[in-house]
Amino acid sequence: MAGEQKATIPATHHDIMGSTAVALISTLGPHGEPQCSPVWFEWDGQLVRFSHTKDRQKYRNLLRDPRIAVTIVDPATPYRYVELRGTAAIEDDPRKLFIDKMAKKYTGQDHYPDSAPGEERVVISVTPTHVNTMG
Amino acid sequence: MAGEQKATIPATHHDIMGSTAVALISTLGPHGEPQCSPVWFEWDGQLVRFSHTKDRQKYRNLLRDPRIAVTIVDPATPYRYVELRGTAAIEDDPRKLFIDKMAKKYTGQDHYPDSAPGEERVVISVTPTHVNTMG
Repeated sequence: MAGEQKATIPATHHDIMGSTAVALISTLGPHGEPQCSPVWFEWDGQLVRFSHTKDRQKYRNLLRDPRIAVTIVDPATPYRYVELRGTAAIEDDPRKLFIDKMAKKYTGQDHYPDSAPGEERVVISVTPTHVNTMG
Repeated sequence: MAGEQKATIPATHHDIMGSTAVALISTLGPHGEPQCSPVWFEWDGQLVRFSHTKDRQKYRNLLRDPRIAVTIVDPATPYRYVELRGTAAIEDDPRKLFIDKMAKKYTGQDHYPDSAPGEERVVISVTPTHVNTMG
């Protein structure tokens, strides 16, 4: 968001950001209501990224209102978590390189096997402007 | 929400609703932005309930705008999940019976050990008006 500072994730919680936990993505539906579902994600030390198809609601939500929360819970210790808030930037992924990278991280496979024919993929990047941690 | 039908959770996903997974609670912040953090929950076959203190943001969010999403991911199979959306009803829990019940479910202890002195507890109940399941 213009004028907002980037927020940093404390080193105490980098293990969660580097884990293979899923990230819970909260976006705003057509009437401004909260919606929330899990995705595969990566964190490069600054941005959180995840893949999405163009035919699903979360993508349409973010085109309408890019505000987003990304919450990742430590599977081993569920009271430990990181919540980031910020705005989402969307880029096309025409060669599906990013979804393949996520398949590699989460399943070990070189290519994501569940693409539907003609499916269009995007990469969604979130720069945190607010970070909460617990535990 | 007035006029909205109750939604039911399919039997295929009752195992998740009865599990000791945490529930991810998405609410709306002061500017209508999404916020999301995990809680202990119970499901009685109709309502989802969780405990909260009066001094934290999620409680203030729900007083301002009761719209909520509750997402529970199967810890063993993270592509399986249930997302419920609805509105939250709030009741006081002066004897802290409900937080003790949650402590029993999640830790086996009869009483929740981490209450701060003077802390006021509420029980938040969500009647689902919309249900998504995956997996």
